[in-house]
Amino acid sequence: MSDLRPIGVFDSGLGGLTVAKEIIRLLPCEDIVYFGDTGRVPYGTKGPETIKRYAREDEKFLLSKGVKMIVAACGTVSSVAPDTAADLPVPFVEVISHSVKEAIEKTVSKKIGILATAATIKSGAHRRLILESLPDAEVTEVSGSLLVGLVEEGFTNKNDPLTIEAVRRYVQPFIDRKIDTLILGCTHFPLLADAVTSVLGEGVTLINMGTASAAAVKRMLTEKHMLNPTGGSHRFFVSDKGAEFQKTASVLLGEDINKENVETAVIDSI
Amino acid sequence: MSDLRPIGVFDSGLGGLTVAKEIIRLLPCEDIVYFGDTGRVPYGTKGPETIKRYAREDEKFLLSKGVKMIVAACGTVSSVAPDTAADLPVPFVEVISHSVKEAIEKTVSKKIGILATAATIKSGAHRRLILESLPDAEVTEVSGSLLVGLVEEGFTNKNDPLTIEAVRRYVQPFIDRKIDTLILGCTHFPLLADAVTSVLGEGVTLINMGTASAAAVKRMLTEKHMLNPTGGSHRFFVSDKGAEFQKTASVLLGEDINKENVETAVIDSI
Repeated sequence: MSDLRPIGVFDSGLGGLTVAKEIIRLLPCEDIVYFGDTGRVPYGTKGPETIKRYAREDEKFLLSKGVKMIVAACGTVSSVAPDTAADLPVPFVEVISHSVKEAIEKTVSKKIGILATAATIKSGAHRRLILESLPDAEVTEVSGSLLVGLVEEGFTNKNDPLTIEAVRRYVQPFIDRKIDTLILGCTHFPLLADAVTSVLGEGVTLINMGTASAAAVKRMLTEKHMLNPTGGSHRFFVSDKGAEFQKTASVLLGEDINKENVETAVIDSI
Repeated sequence: MSDLRPIGVFDSGLGGLTVAKEIIRLLPCEDIVYFGDTGRVPYGTKGPETIKRYAREDEKFLLSKGVKMIVAACGTVSSVAPDTAADLPVPFVEVISHSVKEAIEKTVSKKIGILATAATIKSGAHRRLILESLPDAEVTEVSGSLLVGLVEEGFTNKNDPLTIEAVRRYVQPFIDRKIDTLILGCTHFPLLADAVTSVLGEGVTLINMGTASAAAVKRMLTEKHMLNPTGGSHRFFVSDKGAEFQKTASVLLGEDINKENVETAVIDSI
């Protein structure tokens, strides 16, 4: 059995391309429809009611494209608005729980750090999930909103003093608390992995939500006999093609994205 | 003659509070209705069609509050979408032309710099206006998107190495080109004035869009006999109260803002 419909992936903007990249790597025969809400990005500095409304609108858009599964490739949506998925007629994958599971498997000292957007940290989603499985864990949460902009500007080089100075500003609490595992809880942050490691040291294991969640997507499609053996096309929709859209998209996807292959979508308010 | 209706001021988010602050300082007897589109902030990294649509929606919202004048307290709207004001039934003030005028008055070397958002720089609005009056001016434009996030995070201290490193990254072209006048073309940037001066040196005159535009508001209301001698109330509307709303608003307004006095508005799509 197979299901030839595409996988729908959405994010507040282009950060989710780091998750899409991992899904594409792991499932090269799947068709993907990606939607980035670049007209309203970022979500991570906004309030929960707004984030929930936007998430429902994004999911509705993907359903209109006939997807067989929806991946919320956005740390903020996954932590603040996972309940918007309750009514979806297709399976749903978020990016928090799988990365938490991986962190719990990898930590030895049970001292786990979370680096995410302000909205994600405020939701307490990671902390809650970690303490459910590991009640004696010590969780250190840091909201690193500026790091999103740093990645969007392409300042990710670990030898760049601006990058290191910004990373250091946010990761100092992790050094103080001697964590051994850090969840990069925003889809932009895998691009800062080298810089984070150069400040934190090799002894701290970094958890990438993209790889953890792509594995979950593969597992779920396999179990439900919904894999596509014959696809491999990728369509991208955004709600705005901003001034530096192409540069940012290529940085995050890890390969050149042709602006001509990206369609602009108008998202209906609900 | 007088006009007791409020002045409407809007911005993509909270940056416009630096302009509102200057209007309040200069016209303490005016009632002000401020709208910050915090649910869709920032505009400065987005494309022109999106920015124009948002600007029209914001203007419509202010008109629904019975304002006598609309101030686009946003560098991005003023440069990308000034034509959305063509159909307005009330006088309109944007923040680009008055700051350009001030820069032209102050420059001696005719080497003028612009530090603004990506969308503003891409619009070329400052350059066009400067060259209209001063055809032999040398204009240096830098898009400083990350600096918006820096201000929103409150990292504005001129002794903070992160602030200085970020400012230096963007202002280096101004040093190379030996400008004598710099327009801070985004409403967030007055908060970085000290840091910018500490990198550029005292010899460079900084132009604050807020003071230049507040003077224009006063002049226009005076000429049209529309001043209000008896008001002084300030109402704030936002489209989202984000995770760090109160902190950011207080930083930008320069005084504590009570979250209870701020109303959330739902903006209709048009």
